Amino acid sequence: MTIINLDHISSKPLLPDVKEAMIEAINNDYANPSSQHKKGEEAAEALEKARESVARLINSNMPKEIVFTSSGTESVNHAIKGAVLANAEKGKHIITSNIEHNAVIRSLRRLKSDGFKITSVSVDENGRVNPKDIADAITDQTILVSIMHSNNETGTIQPIEEIAKITKEKKVLFHTDAVDSVGVVSIDVQKMGVDLLSFASNTFYGPTGVGGLFIRRGTVIWPLLDGGVQEGNKRAGAENLIGIIGMGVAADIANRDFDARLDHLNKLKNRLLQELPNYIDEYIINTPLEDSLPNLLSLSIKYIEGESVMLMLDDEDVAVSTRSACATGSLRASHVLLSIGLDHADAQGTLVIAFGVDNKEEDIITFLTALKHIVKTLRDISPLSSKTH
Amino acid sequence: MTIINLDHISSKPLLPDVKEAMIEAINNDYANPSSQHKKGEEAAEALEKARESVARLINSNMPKEIVFTSSGTESVNHAIKGAVLANAEKGKHIITSNIEHNAVIRSLRRLKSDGFKITSVSVDENGRVNPKDIADAITDQTILVSIMHSNNETGTIQPIEEIAKITKEKKVLFHTDAVDSVGVVSIDVQKMGVDLLSFASNTFYGPTGVGGLFIRRGTVIWPLLDGGVQEGNKRAGAENLIGIIGMGVAADIANRDFDARLDHLNKLKNRLLQELPNYIDEYIINTPLEDSLPNLLSLSIKYIEGESVMLMLDDEDVAVSTRSACATGSLRASHVLLSIGLDHADAQGTLVIAFGVDNKEEDIITFLTALKHIVKTLRDISPLSSKTH
Repeated sequence: MTIINLDHISSKPLLPDVKEAMIEAINNDYANPSSQHKKGEEAAEALEKARESVARLINSNMPKEIVFTSSGTESVNHAIKGAVLANAEKGKHIITSNIEHNAVIRSLRRLKSDGFKITSVSVDENGRVNPKDIADAITDQTILVSIMHSNNETGTIQPIEEIAKITKEKKVLFHTDAVDSVGVVSIDVQKMGVDLLSFASNTFYGPTGVGGLFIRRGTVIWPLLDGGVQEGNKRAGAENLIGIIGMGVAADIANRDFDARLDHLNKLKNRLLQELPNYIDEYIINTPLEDSLPNLLSLSIKYIEGESVMLMLDDEDVAVSTRSACATGSLRASHVLLSIGLDHADAQGTLVIAFGVDNKEEDIITFLTALKHIVKTLRDISPLSSKTH
Repeated sequence: MTIINLDHISSKPLLPDVKEAMIEAINNDYANPSSQHKKGEEAAEALEKARESVARLINSNMPKEIVFTSSGTESVNHAIKGAVLANAEKGKHIITSNIEHNAVIRSLRRLKSDGFKITSVSVDENGRVNPKDIADAITDQTILVSIMHSNNETGTIQPIEEIAKITKEKKVLFHTDAVDSVGVVSIDVQKMGVDLLSFASNTFYGPTGVGGLFIRRGTVIWPLLDGGVQEGNKRAGAENLIGIIGMGVAADIANRDFDARLDHLNKLKNRLLQELPNYIDEYIINTPLEDSLPNLLSLSIKYIEGESVMLMLDDEDVAVSTRSACATGSLRASHVLLSIGLDHADAQGTLVIAFGVDNKEEDIITFLTALKHIVKTLRDISPLSSKTH
């Protein structure tokens, strides 16, 4: 079956070159990179080559600033818990926003039960944090600010550089969850000024189950995984070398194709925005047109349920999502959409359309044609809709 | 180059069927197992199939008792920190042994700095824990006992079932680090009675960077990685599906070939023990002949340094290790070897010979022939040796 994938935020396909590199790695029978014999050294070299490629993608000029992890989630847990526990003696206050990913929310909830205080700043109707709110929230007890780079449900990009100026001045560590940004939009850790930045390989068409954490030189955080001396003593455990090699190649290609990808994604998003009124009415675009991910559009369709639309589109071989795949199983309305001011009904009627490099403009028309029919069917049976139509 | 691999404790090659399954998974373009559309469901099915295979390998009759992790190290960190933090209100005392892997030692060190008390029981000259010592060490403050199933430097297998009887009676959680045992020797979680058991895919010729944690039904421990609802809410983060599929196939083959492998490894080990005196003299076998791993032999060669032997063997294309690859870079003598009564000099002269299914009896002769020459060369220049020869 050929499925039109408009759910790239949940999962992106591996690029052909990434597949090839991973298959080569599988067939190469690498040894343990920590072993001191020849076979071990060969593995260690492959590991460091991937680290250089990934460092280049976020413009770190020191590959040692990159720690490989098993996912964006591990990177976030490592950054937050590691930073907080290493600095617990300085204070017990952490600042975040109310639109973060579950990895941030639940890591902080864990710390809260351990006696840490969390301030969660609100966002405006575009889902954006006001840097002034961060500045106002910082006290002499604050040890960490964690604000995501881009939101995985609305695509909103946060003013990270401005926030970093504030945290730097106040000498507070700053972590940004950039899992949906690295490899999609330009990320320059030198310019941004963050201390910690989490990312994941699949965002740039590398394998899932591989991530990275940028730890700025001189930033001391505790490991999350204690044990062996891997990753410069920052993260113990035998490396997923096959996955890391795939991530390295994906980073190289992301660097090479960066501008072309951005053009392609912007073109798809603009086409969707332009065609949308020709197919459906009464909808809300939750994604701000300025400073947002080029590959994502959040769309709330009035009087119907997003989950029903998603399942009916699935029958037509079009994959979209209603929210973060990580929150699957939760029936509650998205905290992100409520935070930007949507009511519960509109939040439940939301689809996240996420493009990838493999999408074509025709995919948008196929999607919209199916969507038009589904929206009509659902509204015809919707009690909410019958009141107003 | 063809290298004779006698360093299977650091890294085992992928089996051809495992490679094939992983390559197929790479080419299959799996979606996110948490996504609710068709492509997501297909991925979720592959994930659960692997879980069933792995459950069978340790004779769990409930696949849900298996949580996939990114390594044996993560499993150990999750088990220990998760169990301790979930039970911190009951008490602050943990019991372990003094021959554990760094993942256990350093996880406990982290907890110690957080106010937990650690009792570390000694082992006898075979590297074995006396269950009575565990019973004696348990107080009403004890919340966890963590004893490894087999040691990665000496191969000693611990009396886990006997210890489990004690912990069960005293209502204390029991974790065993079985990273070097699962898939090599018979592991039956129902019979053993442990609450938590850590293992890694590479031990049974699956990929590195994939592990598992058995959490007995009803055992409540905190997640180490907080975030999404993956792994039954026990471990957040997008899954390394390609690696997990490889682990599943490796588990199936380990189940199928179990007895044949055991015979082969025992034959290799016996041949080495039998030939050894024909090639070198003045050595100590640190591995007990009873209740030890069939694939490992620890050998201390007097008057020389293990690291020099390892490097010279590497020049002859024979890979062995001197100790756990996870401890590479440390110049201190192995804590395990000192614990079983070796002096510093003998501990430094130790090689760990670890067989795999790919070894042949000829490999032993090639290794011993090279070893004989190297030992002579090194002893001729050794000041320690000149005193006594």
